[in-house]
Amino acid sequence: MQEKMKQLKETLATLADIGGALAILGWDQQTYMPSMGAESRGQQSGTLGRLAHEIGTSPDFGKLLDELKPYAASLDPDSDDARMIKFAIRDYEQATRVPAEFVVEQAEVTALANQACAEQRAKSDFAHFRPHLEKIIELTHRFIGFFPPADHPYDTLLDNFEPEMKTADVKAIFTALRPQQVELIKAIAGKSQVDDSFLHQPFDEQKQWDFGVEVITAFGYDWQRGRQDKSPHPFTNGSSINDVRITTRVAPDFLNSMLFGTMHETGHAMYGQGHGINLERTNLANGASLGVHESQSRMWENLVGRSLPFWQHFYPRLQKQFPQLKGVSLDKFYKGINKVQPSLIRVEADEATYNLHIMLRLEIEIAIIEGKLAVKDLPEAWNAKMQEYLGVTPPDDAKGVLQDIHWSWGLFGYFSTYALGNLISAQLWEKINQEIPDLPEQIRQGKFDALLAWLRTNIHVHGRKFMPQELVQKITGSKIDPAPYMHYLKKKYSEIYGL
Amino acid sequence: MQEKMKQLKETLATLADIGGALAILGWDQQTYMPSMGAESRGQQSGTLGRLAHEIGTSPDFGKLLDELKPYAASLDPDSDDARMIKFAIRDYEQATRVPAEFVVEQAEVTALANQACAEQRAKSDFAHFRPHLEKIIELTHRFIGFFPPADHPYDTLLDNFEPEMKTADVKAIFTALRPQQVELIKAIAGKSQVDDSFLHQPFDEQKQWDFGVEVITAFGYDWQRGRQDKSPHPFTNGSSINDVRITTRVAPDFLNSMLFGTMHETGHAMYGQGHGINLERTNLANGASLGVHESQSRMWENLVGRSLPFWQHFYPRLQKQFPQLKGVSLDKFYKGINKVQPSLIRVEADEATYNLHIMLRLEIEIAIIEGKLAVKDLPEAWNAKMQEYLGVTPPDDAKGVLQDIHWSWGLFGYFSTYALGNLISAQLWEKINQEIPDLPEQIRQGKFDALLAWLRTNIHVHGRKFMPQELVQKITGSKIDPAPYMHYLKKKYSEIYGL
Repeated sequence: MQEKMKQLKETLATLADIGGALAILGWDQQTYMPSMGAESRGQQSGTLGRLAHEIGTSPDFGKLLDELKPYAASLDPDSDDARMIKFAIRDYEQATRVPAEFVVEQAEVTALANQACAEQRAKSDFAHFRPHLEKIIELTHRFIGFFPPADHPYDTLLDNFEPEMKTADVKAIFTALRPQQVELIKAIAGKSQVDDSFLHQPFDEQKQWDFGVEVITAFGYDWQRGRQDKSPHPFTNGSSINDVRITTRVAPDFLNSMLFGTMHETGHAMYGQGHGINLERTNLANGASLGVHESQSRMWENLVGRSLPFWQHFYPRLQKQFPQLKGVSLDKFYKGINKVQPSLIRVEADEATYNLHIMLRLEIEIAIIEGKLAVKDLPEAWNAKMQEYLGVTPPDDAKGVLQDIHWSWGLFGYFSTYALGNLISAQLWEKINQEIPDLPEQIRQGKFDALLAWLRTNIHVHGRKFMPQELVQKITGSKIDPAPYMHYLKKKYSEIYGL
Repeated sequence: MQEKMKQLKETLATLADIGGALAILGWDQQTYMPSMGAESRGQQSGTLGRLAHEIGTSPDFGKLLDELKPYAASLDPDSDDARMIKFAIRDYEQATRVPAEFVVEQAEVTALANQACAEQRAKSDFAHFRPHLEKIIELTHRFIGFFPPADHPYDTLLDNFEPEMKTADVKAIFTALRPQQVELIKAIAGKSQVDDSFLHQPFDEQKQWDFGVEVITAFGYDWQRGRQDKSPHPFTNGSSINDVRITTRVAPDFLNSMLFGTMHETGHAMYGQGHGINLERTNLANGASLGVHESQSRMWENLVGRSLPFWQHFYPRLQKQFPQLKGVSLDKFYKGINKVQPSLIRVEADEATYNLHIMLRLEIEIAIIEGKLAVKDLPEAWNAKMQEYLGVTPPDDAKGVLQDIHWSWGLFGYFSTYALGNLISAQLWEKINQEIPDLPEQIRQGKFDALLAWLRTNIHVHGRKFMPQELVQKITGSKIDPAPYMHYLKKKYSEIYGL
């Protein structure tokens, strides 16, 4: 069986190497590739993806996994080998259920839809995006049909991004959360509002960059195993545990883009840099899920980066870089970066309103999959929910239903992971603060090593070994729970707005 | 047969895509990769190389090529399809002759030898590099043994880099050339020497960079299909016809590194950018040989970039960037950049002495392959020939036999392509000047479009469709001929040194 295990590891290493090469091709495409290189790059990535798919779905590989199944059952279920086999079987079953022709058709449909989405958003023209979206939803239904029936058809979609997460569970979590968040922002709206105009003024771009570098170096981002570049849309890109890169965007007249974007991506990247090196070139050298990944980025961006202790340390440094902030007190700055303002665009939303944008999307996706909402009625449904949850109504579809790119890529089931990430981050934060009682004081001194070490030991090192709920339970003693996040929001905003 | 041709093109496209991906992995490794990423990158590149080898040597592919052979014979032999089949067969036969275990062994031996070469060069210690080189030469003999006997065993090596070139031909060319080059540099040595001290002074690095960009933009380098970055060793890297990148090195106190390095790489890159787009994703989207490639880089670097007309246009611009050159006349500058000085290091050699460095290496390689020279006697043989041809003797092996990295990579048969490139460049230059009689005047006006168009039409567009000798003959009416190069050198240096 050792020989078979060796064969498995060789195949997983081949797949990891192709994946790592694809990561670099993608990074290059978003950062340095010459403009005319796009077509060839698409072909190169397509070919590598096809080769990986062929290797990962080959009957020989399936036979090997069958033979390894009883061996896995004989091992400690938490051992690397057992988990490697478990996830290899999971990935193989998922990949072989979807016919190759379907994958090709989906790639073609989404490429067109993606282009249409960008074009119609520019014109705020939902009508011309509608047929693309209808086609994608038809494909999504067919995709669900390749899998055995679940409790809810949406479970199959969710499982792609948040393994083993059930629609009913997410709904239960969101149902508990929604009224509390709606109530909170109503309470905030009744108070005198925060001034954040000082964040919107010219800030030297190089100085912004340098400040971001200073912050994430202090966080513990490992520059020997990463780098930062600029790109229109910030992202994290891991080609191996020892090469996890980030990008950022520097706006010339708004501090937040670089500031919180850089911290956010660093949270993702330190997760990637923290996987146990024993997992390198296996199927476990990944995050547990998108939600758990987002918990890491949100923790560094919000629970650390938008906290008062953090700015008690860093604000004098920021003021030194930007004399235009000399007249802005720490208290005013802290309130400014935490201003709550119900708004139309998800990616610009503050902590108090963000999850409501997600809930709206989840409810719409479920209604579509259940056949209770037709694509033609989408804008109306969207706008009604925006008014209900956030008290605002999009003036047009560009600022409404057309704002996100996810659906045009066929990514149904993805959005909830953003909100789950927020919830997990607060749940972990509660636990971390129990175990490191002087963490706020450490942060006030610009020290993050104990925090990073805790995350490394409890989360990062495991890679993908545990299912998201399993991991959260293992660490905190309970499954994903919205209470800590709600508690965090209420406490923070009570202080800021005097609720 | 159309179906079989389609299958061939699909396989060639797959191989080209993997090659293009490997190119980007290599580019990234030399430019932006974080320091700790090297091990994973080696694994990723190794895996992609292995997959390409498996695809390119599969029995099914061999069978397809057998079936296509008669079809190729029925086509116009110069057609894309006929040439595609011809080169596919050539590559398949070469790749399948060498056993996979040998390739693995060679990779291991050369990786160690390469490291040893760098380490022992630092210590100028040939004795400790010797066992590595002996092992590599043993491998080289075994490599030759995989192929059918040729006129000369060295032919098999040469054929890897300069297809169908014979040892006897290269020897004949070099034998005609050597005494004339030796005589020329002796004549130059008897004249009063040129001052180039003004090239060795501080030059602002950003201004150097900008000047290089101005020059190669004027040459016609297509920035939409390429880019320039910095790297310790300048190189050209093509991942597709629409993505051919260069790198350069900027020395803070010596102008030539950036100046001529940038022009050199641009010559390579414009060749790559100039392949017919009909050849994209085939085995023909490459240069005809290393020698023909070098003819392009050397032409732009030397025949254009070290010419008087070029500097009649660009020198005022250079002086504007660098006021420290204000007191240096055009005549003095032109002579300075063309200073002849027999020296120890190949990569620093001037046009008059460069080929002698190559002849020395070729003679030593042939003697080794013929078994007439033992590795232990290499330093002595090297130094004797340096004295004979160039009148200088290395003070140590670091500045002698250990200076190049090629042998440690097992690249026997490679060096001649550098000298052949020089010869081809002058041979083409003679023809070009017949067909564009006012070319010097155009260059004096900073116009290069007619020159580039000529190269595109006559050379670039064909990619790898013709064998090097075939291509040179097709264009100039004769095979590779040292006379034009010798004529060019004598004329140029007679004027500069008043011979």
